Amino acid sequence: MLVLIANLGSTSFKYRLFDMADGDGRVLAQGGYERVTDHGEVIEDALKELESSGAVSSRSEIDAVGFKTVLGRNLSGCVEADDRVLEALEGFADVAPAHNPPYAAGIRQFSRILPDAKLVALFETAFYQWVPEEGARYAVPEAWHEAGIRRYGFHGASHKFIAERSAELLGREDVAACARGLYQDGPQPIDKPLRVISCHLGGSSSVTGIRNGVAVGTSMGFSPQSGLPQNNRVGDLDSGAIPYAAKVLGLEMPEIERQLTKEAGLLGVSGVSNDLRDIHDAATAGNARAQLSIDMLIHEVRRWASSFLFQLGGIDGFVFTAGIGENGPLLREKVCAGLEEFGIKIDPERNAACAAKECEISTADSRVKVFVIPANEELVLANEVFRKISSNNSTQTQ
Amino acid sequence: MLVLIANLGSTSFKYRLFDMADGDGRVLAQGGYERVTDHGEVIEDALKELESSGAVSSRSEIDAVGFKTVLGRNLSGCVEADDRVLEALEGFADVAPAHNPPYAAGIRQFSRILPDAKLVALFETAFYQWVPEEGARYAVPEAWHEAGIRRYGFHGASHKFIAERSAELLGREDVAACARGLYQDGPQPIDKPLRVISCHLGGSSSVTGIRNGVAVGTSMGFSPQSGLPQNNRVGDLDSGAIPYAAKVLGLEMPEIERQLTKEAGLLGVSGVSNDLRDIHDAATAGNARAQLSIDMLIHEVRRWASSFLFQLGGIDGFVFTAGIGENGPLLREKVCAGLEEFGIKIDPERNAACAAKECEISTADSRVKVFVIPANEELVLANEVFRKISSNNSTQTQ
Repeated sequence: MLVLIANLGSTSFKYRLFDMADGDGRVLAQGGYERVTDHGEVIEDALKELESSGAVSSRSEIDAVGFKTVLGRNLSGCVEADDRVLEALEGFADVAPAHNPPYAAGIRQFSRILPDAKLVALFETAFYQWVPEEGARYAVPEAWHEAGIRRYGFHGASHKFIAERSAELLGREDVAACARGLYQDGPQPIDKPLRVISCHLGGSSSVTGIRNGVAVGTSMGFSPQSGLPQNNRVGDLDSGAIPYAAKVLGLEMPEIERQLTKEAGLLGVSGVSNDLRDIHDAATAGNARAQLSIDMLIHEVRRWASSFLFQLGGIDGFVFTAGIGENGPLLREKVCAGLEEFGIKIDPERNAACAAKECEISTADSRVKVFVIPANEELVLANEVFRKISSNNSTQTQ
Repeated sequence: MLVLIANLGSTSFKYRLFDMADGDGRVLAQGGYERVTDHGEVIEDALKELESSGAVSSRSEIDAVGFKTVLGRNLSGCVEADDRVLEALEGFADVAPAHNPPYAAGIRQFSRILPDAKLVALFETAFYQWVPEEGARYAVPEAWHEAGIRRYGFHGASHKFIAERSAELLGREDVAACARGLYQDGPQPIDKPLRVISCHLGGSSSVTGIRNGVAVGTSMGFSPQSGLPQNNRVGDLDSGAIPYAAKVLGLEMPEIERQLTKEAGLLGVSGVSNDLRDIHDAATAGNARAQLSIDMLIHEVRRWASSFLFQLGGIDGFVFTAGIGENGPLLREKVCAGLEEFGIKIDPERNAACAAKECEISTADSRVKVFVIPANEELVLANEVFRKISSNNSTQTQ
């Protein structure tokens, strides 16, 4: 089965073609475009390129196209990218203005030019479908809730992969199987609970609590602006600060929104960069604001990670993933410092030696296993598309 | 020593006169006024009443007046209510418009009519002076931080009293002594850590993490609008929801502020009342939204309480205080459910039997002691005023 992953940004298009025949996901071709003004044109160009390079002899060989959609109004999951998806994306164009319109346009384009391929949308919110209602609501007036203001959560593809992979590494094939089939079969009863906290730390960061392969909550809420301090987005902020800032700083709403999404987060605090590598260099050179921004990120990872403990009822696995999580031994060490009473002990040498590869970084006697698990987001998506279509096919042939 | 506690609301004035001679705080007189338009007039009237009732033979017998001020710009602590305090209160009149102006007016009035009394302001933010900077900052642009947007925390008098009393109940007189003297002497080194989580649950609610008698963090941030869902204030909300609500609901900033502080929280979700007793009755009668609002409060207490665990490094005591905390056995039971792995076990009978009195409600074999500790906020304040003045006096006579 050939699965094309289509990654659509507001001015970019990237693609990767996977052969899922052996279930493992082999990359056959990839490419991308920047400064895109006409998504239809570059999609057509990419398909021609796949044909002319010999990756496929004809575009009709492509069985499925997968889209990592962000969030939709009244819709989530790993679903066929049909009119319902288009409507859901367009219904929340105001929430994700940089992502939803290009995805809606891209899905329309692919349905036109690849009429026989299955189109599949995996919403970034999909992993949070089973968060209990009391954890998904804000205590806003009813009209706000009706308008769609609730905790959605993001980075779902990444955290769900961690749910699968951590269960495998913890020797819990029962939980891993449930996690893999989650979008087809829903949560399954598990005899002995498995509790994992997953830290996705990168330019955009979130922490998710996972019980028996299912998310119980996550640090990002209505928008990717909340939770941990992000590269240049503010993270958690008292909503009462906004009317106050409007008053004392004389800011209008669009400017408030711009500042909190472009000039805040690690960039706003450090005053140096939105890239943690630059900030780290500045901190090492003595820049106190740069050091403070790193300390804040660590503080918030710890605060959010432990916030799931009561809900999980305990912890068995603690995982780091994404750019900073995979390549930041110092940050991992500081996040895990002083957690011996919770059964979390890092092995300094294992931790220091682990960069961008899968490792167990806890000590041999650490009750909680601490892992670094790199994720290939395109492959994760291709796998979900493969499962979705295989499941549909098996349903149809029953 | 006679200490008068002056509680000033935007349209109210309540007072209580304590005799602190024996260090225990005996109430000599109390009274109050509602629908106040002229604070100066009712303060004068109250002093006349104290004289005519014989509580004091002359107002000049009053040694000190204590004010539970909310927050001030660039100032916190338990401090002499002088020009610095007035300036700090007036500098943050926009943050606490219902509280700061009447307190500033009240302090001015008392300094005029009781020129020989010591005036003491205890800021509600005082207990959070030692929260590490990385836990007190928001990742806002520098100009926002300069404008005073940071995590202040509130209910400081209540949580600090819990720090003192829980240490006494846990047999840790060393920590209790440090907590009592905190505003005079600052944090003190402690050999063996004591970690307490304090849940102040009432019309206004917050959860504070306490290590060695000192707060390490709390659920309320810049304003009392954040943290747990409040009676009619929203609690935590993604700041990105505000520009979105402005757009899709067509709301201007003052209306947004009004809705989030008056029509949100338990009232907004339940649609029934801002009083948990009414909401509980409605839920019992089958109102699903009422039940949801209770479930959300429980969820958020658990989320915030556990959020301090990594920072504290463990937990030794778990405390409930204030109206709901003291009188809500069902809520306490649900907050503590499934926490056996953390050493927290509630005794159902002890819990059910405990209302509005000091009790240990954990089982005999619970590693973490769980307490209900009622607080008398006026007495707590009178004690702080007494300590402040005694300390000043002893400093002056050295």
